[in-house]
Parts: sequence; structure tokens; C-alpha cells
Amino acid sequence: MSAKVWLVGAGPGDPELLTLKAVKALNRADIVMIDDLVNPAVLEHCPNARVVPVGKRGGCRSTPQAFIHRLMLRYARQGKCVVRLKGGDPCIFGRGSEEVDWLSAHGIEVEMVNGITAGLAGATQCGIPLTLRGVARGVTLVTAHTQDDSTLNWAALAQGGTTLVVYMGVAKLAQIRESLLAGGMRADMPVALIENASLPQQRECRSSLHAMQQDALDFQLKSPAVLVIGEVASARQPQVMAASA
Amino acid sequence: MSAKVWLVGAGPGDPELLTLKAVKALNRADIVMIDDLVNPAVLEHCPNARVVPVGKRGGCRSTPQAFIHRLMLRYARQGKCVVRLKGGDPCIFGRGSEEVDWLSAHGIEVEMVNGITAGLAGATQCGIPLTLRGVARGVTLVTAHTQDDSTLNWAALAQGGTTLVVYMGVAKLAQIRESLLAGGMRADMPVALIENASLPQQRECRSSLHAMQQDALDFQLKSPAVLVIGEVASARQPQVMAASA
Repeated sequence: MSAKVWLVGAGPGDPELLTLKAVKALNRADIVMIDDLVNPAVLEHCPNARVVPVGKRGGCRSTPQAFIHRLMLRYARQGKCVVRLKGGDPCIFGRGSEEVDWLSAHGIEVEMVNGITAGLAGATQCGIPLTLRGVARGVTLVTAHTQDDSTLNWAALAQGGTTLVVYMGVAKLAQIRESLLAGGMRADMPVALIENASLPQQRECRSSLHAMQQDALDFQLKSPAVLVIGEVASARQPQVMAASA
Repeated sequence: MSAKVWLVGAGPGDPELLTLKAVKALNRADIVMIDDLVNPAVLEHCPNARVVPVGKRGGCRSTPQAFIHRLMLRYARQGKCVVRLKGGDPCIFGRGSEEVDWLSAHGIEVEMVNGITAGLAGATQCGIPLTLRGVARGVTLVTAHTQDDSTLNWAALAQGGTTLVVYMGVAKLAQIRESLLAGGMRADMPVALIENASLPQQRECRSSLHAMQQDALDFQLKSPAVLVIGEVASARQPQVMAASA
């Protein structure tokens, strides 16, 4: 068996939203390298593994990516079963492919396991249908993270007719509002701000594009949070229960 | 305990991509109402439940939605534990919220469980990073299904800077191409056509916006399939293994 790393999505927070495949990988793991956004409760599936935290915590700087790469490589070459556990889905704003590329270039086989991404889980728990016939024929997931220099055309996003789900946007609400207003989105477009998606401490604040910055302040919205922007964000289905863990 | 229905995502096909929460719901189920796109292998988690297929099969007409609604209601009012099992995620093109609304209006509590949606799973198994720093700062999931009369602005989607994932697009390749070209997308934009995402029989065809219709014909592409359109669709990571079931 050649050296191999499992790149696994831990889901949005609720430990029951882990997939069976993720559980299987954790069961087999010798080493589990986890990010901060992973709920430690999922580690019940790997009681005998060595857990290596590689995120940032409490104001400390985040672990450099190059260090994470080298550590994964070292453990894999020692013949260890390495699981790299990331919050949500490793392919959605998870930099999963960067780790895959680096490991592949060093001869390490990588197996990826999808996870439920926070935007979808948060909307579901709030009773918001991200797609809805006759209202939203699609959904767009974007990150507001400024270290990503990819082109994002907010004016086009405002016009696309899809529900927008914005990750890492808490500190960027003013810019997001201005960009979408400039793109022609109406000021009273419904917005839902969802903190700690899928966890027992999940909180939601309903607002509008125009008011979301002030409402987020009043609500004391904190990261991690997702924004859902679109007609569907006015939906509320009080009969939908958050499934208890 | 009041009458309740579980609306559960069965994931993209690979039975190991089911969540623990979905397994728990199936374990408890008396009645499981399943769509066609659900892999019957997941029914191993509900050996004692009565399984009611409510999709269309082999040229037959699909079960009318109103009939599905009434059947769920009847079983729930009988005190049965009802699981409505849908392919992928019930909130992504799954009409989940229509069923929630109807059941809620009839006093039935609904609990939703997210699933891994086919577009994300297919791309992951093909080694395509749907989001990639410096290349794609987001991903847009849309349906090409024409019975959905929601506004979809293909010209804006062509300009948004996100990777496009199109569901139910196999029969609409010509229209999608023309719409995106008219919106200013370049003709050689990479495209991946992915059939039977996440299943052992998954097949992929790499093409371009210009050539995808002809290539799909030559490849004999069949539904269900997803299209991934964007710079990232040229990525191929041969070291990424499809995790075996």
C-alpha cells in the first residue's frame, strides 16, 4: 500500500452531518490533522489517533500552509494513515485542491471525501430553500475573503437570478452591500445572517441588503457566519425543526 | 409525539456519502418514500421499513406531486415514522421546500437532513476544485430544467467569475452554449461532463464550451449528468482516487 492521505470534510458543525465515508476514514486514522472550524465532537470516531491541530486559535497566527504540507508528507511517508480534516467540504473554500496538488507532486496518493458545506446546512436549518421553483433557479456560493485575488463580478452576481450565499463576509458587509447595490440589486432584497450554522448555538438574523450592516451590529453577529441574499431569504418555515444531535 | 416527516438527502449515489443523521432517520423509519435518483443500496439502513417508490421509471410518468403529498400526510397521521428520501440534497433542486410548506400547512412537523449534492461530489471525484484561489472565488449551481420558470440570466452567469455547475442540462447543451457565448464567455472555456457522479459507473468527458454538444454526442452522455463550466474544469488530478464504496 503506497503512502496516502485522506482529505476529509467534517461538515458544518453538527457531528451527525458527517458522512459514513468520513467516519470510516477517521476510524482508520493514525494521525488526524484538524482545522479550527472542525467540531472536536467528531473526534469520537478516532479515539486512538494522534490529533494535530493546525488552525489558528485565540488570536494566534494560523499554522503556515507549507508547514501543514510538510507534516502531512512526513507522516504519510512514515506509513501512517493520515486524515486531513477540514470544516465543511474540502472543495468549497477549503483550499483542498492546493493540498492535493502538493501531495500529488510528492508522490502521495490523496483520497477526498465531500462534506456538507456550512451555507447549505445553515439555510436548511433556518427553513430557507436556496433553490425554489419560480423564484431561484440556482444558488451561488462565494467567499468575501480578500486574500483571494480571483475575479468576482458582484454586478453580474446581482443580476444572475440565483440566491447568493456569502462565506467569510462578516467583516465585509458594507462592501458587499455597495457592490450589489451598484450592480442593480434592490435595497430591500431579503438577507439572512446565520452564525454557527447547524450547531446548537446557531443564531439567525433576518434583514435586508440595505439594513444588513446595522442589523448585524445590533445582533452582534460573529464569525463564522454565512449570509444568504435573495428572495428566498424571506422564507421562514417555523415547522422545520433543527434536527437534534 | 406529534406527526412528523423526515425529509432526507440520500446524497449523490455513493451509499457511503450518506450522513450519520440520514442513517439514524432511516433506522427509525416505518415508511420510506424514495425518488428514482436514490441509490437503493442505502435502503440497507431500513431493513424493516416499507419502501414506497414515488419516482418515474422506464418511460412511465412520474408520480404526481399532489399524490406524494397526500401519501406522506396519511402515513404521518397514522403515527408512522415517515422518511421522504431524495437524491442529493433536498434543498438543491429537490423541491424539498414545496413538500415542507404543504406538510406544515397541514400541521405536520418536518425535519430536514442535508445530503451531498451531485455537482459537488462529481467534481471532487474528477479532481476538479470548484473553488480555487486566484481562479474561481465561487461556484454557481443552476438547473437547466425548463419546467422551472424562474429568471436565470445566463449572460450574467457568464460574467460572474464563478464556476458554473449545471444540473439537468444534458438535453439543453445547445441552448446553454448559445446563452453563455452570447453573454461573453469564451468559446474555449473548459467544460467537464460528468455522468453518474460518485457511483462506480461514473464517467467523465472533458471538453470546451464550443465543443461540448458534439463531444457529449460522441461520448453518448446520458442523464443523470452534471456539467462543470469554468477554468477549473481543465484541472485533472490523477492521484485523486475515487474512494471505493
